[in-house]
Amino acid sequence: MAGYPLSSGKPSLIVRKLQPDNREMPLSFVDTDTIGNDLFYRRNHFPYPSLPQTIYWLPVNGLVHMPKIFTLDEILQLPSKTLKVVLECSGNKRHFFEPKVFGDQWEKGAIGQGYWKGVPLRSLLELAGGVQPGAKEVLIEGYDYGKQSNINQPVTFARSLPLSKALHPDTLIAYQYNNQPISFKHGYPLRLIVPQWYAVASVKWIKQITVIDYEFNGPFQAVDYVYYPDKETDAGAFPVTVLNVNSSIQKPLNREILNRGMHLIKGIAWTGAGTITKVEVSTDNGSNWYPAQIEAQNSNEKYAWTSWTYEWHAVKKGEYTLLVKAADSHNRKQPSIPFWNRKGYGYNAIDKVRVKVE
Amino acid sequence: MAGYPLSSGKPSLIVRKLQPDNREMPLSFVDTDTIGNDLFYRRNHFPYPSLPQTIYWLPVNGLVHMPKIFTLDEILQLPSKTLKVVLECSGNKRHFFEPKVFGDQWEKGAIGQGYWKGVPLRSLLELAGGVQPGAKEVLIEGYDYGKQSNINQPVTFARSLPLSKALHPDTLIAYQYNNQPISFKHGYPLRLIVPQWYAVASVKWIKQITVIDYEFNGPFQAVDYVYYPDKETDAGAFPVTVLNVNSSIQKPLNREILNRGMHLIKGIAWTGAGTITKVEVSTDNGSNWYPAQIEAQNSNEKYAWTSWTYEWHAVKKGEYTLLVKAADSHNRKQPSIPFWNRKGYGYNAIDKVRVKVE
Repeated sequence: MAGYPLSSGKPSLIVRKLQPDNREMPLSFVDTDTIGNDLFYRRNHFPYPSLPQTIYWLPVNGLVHMPKIFTLDEILQLPSKTLKVVLECSGNKRHFFEPKVFGDQWEKGAIGQGYWKGVPLRSLLELAGGVQPGAKEVLIEGYDYGKQSNINQPVTFARSLPLSKALHPDTLIAYQYNNQPISFKHGYPLRLIVPQWYAVASVKWIKQITVIDYEFNGPFQAVDYVYYPDKETDAGAFPVTVLNVNSSIQKPLNREILNRGMHLIKGIAWTGAGTITKVEVSTDNGSNWYPAQIEAQNSNEKYAWTSWTYEWHAVKKGEYTLLVKAADSHNRKQPSIPFWNRKGYGYNAIDKVRVKVE
Repeated sequence: MAGYPLSSGKPSLIVRKLQPDNREMPLSFVDTDTIGNDLFYRRNHFPYPSLPQTIYWLPVNGLVHMPKIFTLDEILQLPSKTLKVVLECSGNKRHFFEPKVFGDQWEKGAIGQGYWKGVPLRSLLELAGGVQPGAKEVLIEGYDYGKQSNINQPVTFARSLPLSKALHPDTLIAYQYNNQPISFKHGYPLRLIVPQWYAVASVKWIKQITVIDYEFNGPFQAVDYVYYPDKETDAGAFPVTVLNVNSSIQKPLNREILNRGMHLIKGIAWTGAGTITKVEVSTDNGSNWYPAQIEAQNSNEKYAWTSWTYEWHAVKKGEYTLLVKAADSHNRKQPSIPFWNRKGYGYNAIDKVRVKVE
């Protein structure tokens, strides 16, 4: 009767929708700093695409001096860089808005990170002769497409970047994730990686790159992924771009019952502007704040999240509200009250868990 | 470039805690009526136990006329029965109590069902000569044990049944689930199955059965798994036994955005007293109620849940509150407001999802 698995096993992704496939990471049960494919969140707008049966090639065209088609082999030969980048869905934490908003109810796990290796988009544009005067944006289309509500034609997933972001030397056409080819479900063979922006910009399964002289207004640029501060009208709308400064408590769990004694409060903090400079924890619902210990980051990890811990001595029985807030080097801070918007993007209020000490 | 998995894949259990292993079924993404081991919820109080290395035997002792040790082989030879039984954790839906309670935040998936095959506990007691006069309860101990908060000694998971329930011909010592040996994580080789009671009674990894002449008051009987209606005191406490009448909406999802047109509202309903006689749906937050279509059940499925559907024609744009409520043949009905209790057991308020039609 020996040989039974005594361990609890591994966590797995939490399904938010099956068609298309949308799942989040169980953040509280992940203790690695680099997320494997099995636990990397999935956010799809459409069914998984069929990739071409032929050798993969990537057209770079539009307003470049010498439009060019790159083979995957050519791209793999170019000088590359490897960056540790956090990708966060702009709907991450949508579940926590009050009043509640409609849409996939992401909790804290629509986020992941690891090492992306690839060629700067800038290099491909240069090899295509460079962008022509008058160019305004770079349009990236994926192989994924389908029916979008209220649009009759099938639409392709496509996003544009302003020239400045497209030409940033760390905006990558990535082909590896954590030293392996990018997994199919996360964008194989080529995925755009746009550090510091919400992950909607990091187009998967890249099909084509086009330099354009206008502002692209596809449905994932000008309808969705737009902050609408008003419940009924589109007044004050503006696009989802840079990651807000943010942090999450991983442990303890919300509504967990703890014994008296020392408990390690732990979590992550991240930002799209500069680096995390401060993480503070409160164990009394905000009356007092104490600095958390921040894990040192290497200089090549400036786009990654920061792990933090705080040793809490829970001396007295009772109910406690634990809070965490982060600040970044651009002096951005997490707000007490999130910026409510109709589609529920960019939630970054101070994170909170309630626990009971017995 | 062919051969990529285009499907979204299967759902998986949602981790609520890893140590010990506690995970729930993603109810909204399950469309089978019999739940396989991979999606059957796990509710453990302790680490998985080590089973004896020798041949498995089961002592039946205490107040029986001829205490006896059964081998597994002997048990497998006895006349058996197969019952489709729903098992529900009494903490199922704890997450939805208001005011919120502490403990594992089960949503709607701490429930599962399938075909359990085994020998009536009654038969084993008869083979042990029958219970002696003065017997009051039957105590069932599992192989799982460990440290329980506020108790210094390690405790074994153990529960008792009143004689009437222990001798009910459908209370089984089960050895198969869905035509296979019960999986290790769900109680291999022998699990008690107590139809119509919350699943805490269905002890896994049975180690020993003892007939006793007193009321057992172990921690999982007299401390936990007790309804405490008062927040501060133990006034009015009573034990968790029979399943409440209950129902859950599987589709649509809470906060889902739907197109105008026909939508199938679907879910399950179950009870621990008699059978489900009525399921009603409201699409206007309770102003009007309409009967759902109930799937016919075989007579040998009286302990199983009932699947139901309702065709909803969503004609107008807007926000809708969809409700479902079930009633059983003992005239029990789901309440609008759940019976709040400090440890959060037995939630069975009318189920609700909010959707937006565009």
